[in-house]
Amino acid sequence: MGFRARYTGLIEKYRDRLPVHDDTRIISLGEGNTPLVKLHNLPNLLQKDVDIYVKYEGSNPTGSFKDRGMTMAVTKAVEVGSQAIICASTGNTSAAAAAYAARAGIRAFVLIPEGKIALGKLAQAFMYGATVLQIRGNFDQGMSLVKKVAETAPVTIVNSINPYRLQGQKTASFEVVEALGFAPDYHCLPVGNAGNISAYWMGYCEYYKDGVTNNKPKMLGYQAEGAAPFLQGAPVDYPETVATAIRIGNPQSWNKALAAQQESGGWFDKLSDEKILEAQKMLAQHEGIFCEPASAASVGGAMRDICSGKILEGSRVVCTLTGNGLKDPDTAIAQCHSVKQVAIAAELPAVEKAILDYMK
Amino acid sequence: MGFRARYTGLIEKYRDRLPVHDDTRIISLGEGNTPLVKLHNLPNLLQKDVDIYVKYEGSNPTGSFKDRGMTMAVTKAVEVGSQAIICASTGNTSAAAAAYAARAGIRAFVLIPEGKIALGKLAQAFMYGATVLQIRGNFDQGMSLVKKVAETAPVTIVNSINPYRLQGQKTASFEVVEALGFAPDYHCLPVGNAGNISAYWMGYCEYYKDGVTNNKPKMLGYQAEGAAPFLQGAPVDYPETVATAIRIGNPQSWNKALAAQQESGGWFDKLSDEKILEAQKMLAQHEGIFCEPASAASVGGAMRDICSGKILEGSRVVCTLTGNGLKDPDTAIAQCHSVKQVAIAAELPAVEKAILDYMK
Repeated sequence: MGFRARYTGLIEKYRDRLPVHDDTRIISLGEGNTPLVKLHNLPNLLQKDVDIYVKYEGSNPTGSFKDRGMTMAVTKAVEVGSQAIICASTGNTSAAAAAYAARAGIRAFVLIPEGKIALGKLAQAFMYGATVLQIRGNFDQGMSLVKKVAETAPVTIVNSINPYRLQGQKTASFEVVEALGFAPDYHCLPVGNAGNISAYWMGYCEYYKDGVTNNKPKMLGYQAEGAAPFLQGAPVDYPETVATAIRIGNPQSWNKALAAQQESGGWFDKLSDEKILEAQKMLAQHEGIFCEPASAASVGGAMRDICSGKILEGSRVVCTLTGNGLKDPDTAIAQCHSVKQVAIAAELPAVEKAILDYMK
Repeated sequence: MGFRARYTGLIEKYRDRLPVHDDTRIISLGEGNTPLVKLHNLPNLLQKDVDIYVKYEGSNPTGSFKDRGMTMAVTKAVEVGSQAIICASTGNTSAAAAAYAARAGIRAFVLIPEGKIALGKLAQAFMYGATVLQIRGNFDQGMSLVKKVAETAPVTIVNSINPYRLQGQKTASFEVVEALGFAPDYHCLPVGNAGNISAYWMGYCEYYKDGVTNNKPKMLGYQAEGAAPFLQGAPVDYPETVATAIRIGNPQSWNKALAAQQESGGWFDKLSDEKILEAQKMLAQHEGIFCEPASAASVGGAMRDICSGKILEGSRVVCTLTGNGLKDPDTAIAQCHSVKQVAIAAELPAVEKAILDYMK
């Protein structure tokens, strides 16, 4: 047939909108191009006339949206000859950094909070061969250390304070607009370090400015109750939440995220851990979509604001599901403690009885 | 802009090649459309002139290739009014069945071998709300039970003996041909229940017959040493392997898979658990790609056959990575026991020292 259409990642796809040169060596794992799935059952349960879509970033190569930024950050680090990258992380950034460093053939140092990282993310950092520094402290302390270390050590920071990260991440907005044919009315995101909401807004504004779309969404940022600096109006010293990916008290992209909220006419709000986990379970059990706890903050927040009428009926809403549910199997299983976990004999009567019991 | 190009799954995309009607209600989670990633570093390490691509099926909605078949099987079950589906599973099929049943609003019963299923897969079955029957037996016993139960109970079997499963799975070959512009010279797959190698061959033959491509690959099937019925030429009563996804002794698609191997001029071979895990780690550490152990059998087998010259130099090789590495975090972490796991103080000197130590 002759044509070939191999998808080779978001830098190749959006080359003219990203800061790369013709001869830049692209470090890619085929990130981006993630599904935008329309929810069918949750809107029915809510009995509200809204279109809700989820941008399922768990389909990225390392299972989170971080890959979008990391392909850019590592590509640019390699371009200037960097031999090592470093980041602080609640787990997803370290997985992405480790994977793209492996692909590039350079070294990755990752600082993670000891004992506060989901199992899957720990497995990833190890398997991809990163040098894992587990610190007795939280993400914010790790972030502060990374910034100091990079002043003298020959390492490139790949946290979202690296400007190339947000450049890569803005492509998610491009994909949403292309999938729908327009920008949504509301775009809902979990907010931790606040880079992603900033990047999405950058992407929407760019497509709007260039006339690719003639509308922009209100940006809605949802935080966990125990880690909600935007609601408090100041950093939180000891952030705590089951949603480890947004267990961050001192967001590095504070000003950018605040601007996104204000310019778009959106808002920040917070959810209890209970409500976050409830939304995670609803998505899995009613839509067949399994995201990590932090991701569910976007849908949990959207559902609440739809029910209250704050999000208007007739609206088109996109929620970003930032990470794969498989990142955190322990929290998922702990949530299902009520499930009957009985082992039965491998015999026909036992299986028939079990099925009949459940069919009742 | 007006155009909209939302990807809505493989049934919509390949509608004219799949057994669905115009008014069939499609049960989809946006499966398929997975990346075909060219390996850069492993071919260099092997010092052989071959193009190796991996079809990364871990990007599917539930993290494995099973979603391709399940969208078809559940769509057809719903079409005939089925209220419940059932399967035996080593874990990936149960995750997919549970997710698509949730999306469809019907019930899923899954039979899994007690204690022999990877953690992520167990979390999925629970979270998606399946009725999980853990049997004191292995996959083959579960499969046998499922077939008996379905004779009388009002449930549709969604194992790969359900013909719609392979129809959905054949689309992976379509995607490979479209990505490359041709079929590869060799296509390597892990072989457990043997449905997937059968489905890929079906897909390649269909595109060849219709002139979409003018070549077909040799189909290479790799089994785990402790679960290698195709090498033994007979079922294995007590299959054992760390690669739980292919811990199967009595493949249901025996004849189809044998035909695929013979008609294509390919071969079956086996790998030790040690070699499977080695390949898994090499992929992660040198390419930044994290698959589950079973998946690595394809790349491990390909690497061995490339080195021995059995796979000819100058060839184009595609290896299917059937499932996401996050499915089995425990096996990954156990493999990295040599990694230094020291927690350090959240202080600059401690971090600087740790980095300098590793830089040496």
